[in-house]
Amino acid sequence: VSLQALPDDLETPCVVVDRATMDANIERLQSALDARGIRNRPHAKTHKSVRIGRLQVDAGAAGLTVGTLGEAEVFAAGGITDLFIAYPLWFSGSKGERLRALTEVADLRVGVDSVEGATTLAAAVKGVARPPRALVEVDSGGHRTGVEDPALVVEIARAVSNAGLEVEGVFTHGGHAYALGAAEAAAADETTALAQAAEALRRAGFEPRTISSGTTPTRLLAGTPVNEVRAGTYVFGDRQQVSLGAAAEDEVALVVAATVVSVHLGRFVIDAGAKSLTKDRPEHLAGYGLMPAYPDVVIDRLSDYHGTCVVPNGGPAPRLGEVVAIVPNHVCPVVDLFDELTVVSAGGGTERWPVDARGRSR
Amino acid sequence: VSLQALPDDLETPCVVVDRATMDANIERLQSALDARGIRNRPHAKTHKSVRIGRLQVDAGAAGLTVGTLGEAEVFAAGGITDLFIAYPLWFSGSKGERLRALTEVADLRVGVDSVEGATTLAAAVKGVARPPRALVEVDSGGHRTGVEDPALVVEIARAVSNAGLEVEGVFTHGGHAYALGAAEAAAADETTALAQAAEALRRAGFEPRTISSGTTPTRLLAGTPVNEVRAGTYVFGDRQQVSLGAAAEDEVALVVAATVVSVHLGRFVIDAGAKSLTKDRPEHLAGYGLMPAYPDVVIDRLSDYHGTCVVPNGGPAPRLGEVVAIVPNHVCPVVDLFDELTVVSAGGGTERWPVDARGRSR
Repeated sequence: VSLQALPDDLETPCVVVDRATMDANIERLQSALDARGIRNRPHAKTHKSVRIGRLQVDAGAAGLTVGTLGEAEVFAAGGITDLFIAYPLWFSGSKGERLRALTEVADLRVGVDSVEGATTLAAAVKGVARPPRALVEVDSGGHRTGVEDPALVVEIARAVSNAGLEVEGVFTHGGHAYALGAAEAAAADETTALAQAAEALRRAGFEPRTISSGTTPTRLLAGTPVNEVRAGTYVFGDRQQVSLGAAAEDEVALVVAATVVSVHLGRFVIDAGAKSLTKDRPEHLAGYGLMPAYPDVVIDRLSDYHGTCVVPNGGPAPRLGEVVAIVPNHVCPVVDLFDELTVVSAGGGTERWPVDARGRSR
Repeated sequence: VSLQALPDDLETPCVVVDRATMDANIERLQSALDARGIRNRPHAKTHKSVRIGRLQVDAGAAGLTVGTLGEAEVFAAGGITDLFIAYPLWFSGSKGERLRALTEVADLRVGVDSVEGATTLAAAVKGVARPPRALVEVDSGGHRTGVEDPALVVEIARAVSNAGLEVEGVFTHGGHAYALGAAEAAAADETTALAQAAEALRRAGFEPRTISSGTTPTRLLAGTPVNEVRAGTYVFGDRQQVSLGAAAEDEVALVVAATVVSVHLGRFVIDAGAKSLTKDRPEHLAGYGLMPAYPDVVIDRLSDYHGTCVVPNGGPAPRLGEVVAIVPNHVCPVVDLFDELTVVSAGGGTERWPVDARGRSR
């Protein structure tokens, strides 16, 4: 982690991004996918930043993936208009109205995983000049949204088509990649499930142009016929990705900076609690983040504004008033808690970049 | 829970507050503390709303408790100027400057739990017209911030006094009340620890005017000499408080509203994930919140925007597109994720109230 030497005069808690590391992450994935002939459509829910989205697009990304209508609105307003809402949103009432308005400024693709969702989507955008194209979500083993049965993929595609919208293709998210040693099998599951769904669509007379998979752990493991990848977390990395082998330690581009406010025998307290680090903790990790400068310290308990840290017997610990860097367990919900990122350039200068889509969860 | 009948046309995920229930919570605690002759200083980190803080003060609260300088700034700007920052902040650099500025508009009390923290605080406000008064934090068994040894309380008080600030008293937070059956013992610990600290201060020549305890589970259990209570969560209640017996089910005044976006055999997915419900889950509770209308459903997994819910065998489940109410496990970090609250009045009308201090974690 390159962020152990934090800038002076940080007001904590805050989020600090190392620009050179982030740029390298963006470039590395783009090059790798370019070499494979796979389109890169990064998930913007991780950074929620128009400026970082622009860096990804300038590096060669086809557009961005988002998880909510609000994120799509923010990025479209920021000039990034090729957007995929990779989520089976329910577009009734005012959400349907917002989607209609968004079609006027953005080139949209939207996920669907049910016949009813497809007809609700189509009703919301009936008559617009540039309707969204639909991608049917496939459950490749994550067992969240999406459908498993290729026959159901076809049924949903027919509903999309009958309602007057174009079927763009299929997508999946192999969420079961988020466990130790699971990435290769999950990537194979993504590829297999997408291949079966795409083949079923072809047999039914559809031509799936986009076959889209993606998680950060599986981003480099997609096989034919996958032609689009939607990784998000790779842009910053986090403790979970490192633990899964999906990011190297020196690829982590973001830390939370916190100040030690209280020191006791065997423990100390930092001013980053659940409202800064979140209580996200994968089962295989101890504590709520990693301090690279004090790797044996366990961030053991979080209250809203307190992080209570346990110091192993005789181990080194920071002093009262010291500012420490913390690699969060899962970076996405952490960034969503902050209005801005402190971005440190290679020369040591700092800029504040807004988290434009902070809190846009609907 | 009175919020099972949600207003129509909610855009989800959003936070819905039942005004009558919240008003009753505010009134009930105020009356109970008035009857005991104990000052009420509610913790505003739960609601982060100037308007709700005003309701608490109008009902008789002496002022508000906050956990960060940013919260203090927001409430002072909103006209609530009697504020206690119940946290041993480290006031170096620009945080010291912000504190100085705040003393011009607010009547401040600030927590300290170390000699160095006391001298840093005093240096930051040197020469201001209305310096903050200090309360020494006592560890009554929560083992977070605060000191256990009464002799150390005296040493810190002397440092405060020698640095030119007034010692207002002592405070504690019995965080160990947050376990099943623990409230009575934790309240007794709070009272005992505060009594010992106050007595040590008196013997050393100080006159502790404020002796302040408080958590929602212990808010009605404080004994002599406690003369101030700082509960926060009581204003809304949450699933954890109900499970601990610290709130009745019909005292829960806040729910997260979410839409069912995907339905599968044995499970369904709502559009409220970790960025809406948080991953806060006390060990004794299953899942990430409770659906009062479907009490057997377990909100089993959260990703950023997905809540994957498990339906027990043959049990009832909501339909696709249905809007469901969820009582969050821990309400404080949930409110911090939203920019506004949808407040429903007894007549059924709705208003949007801003979460003024949303994200003010520093």
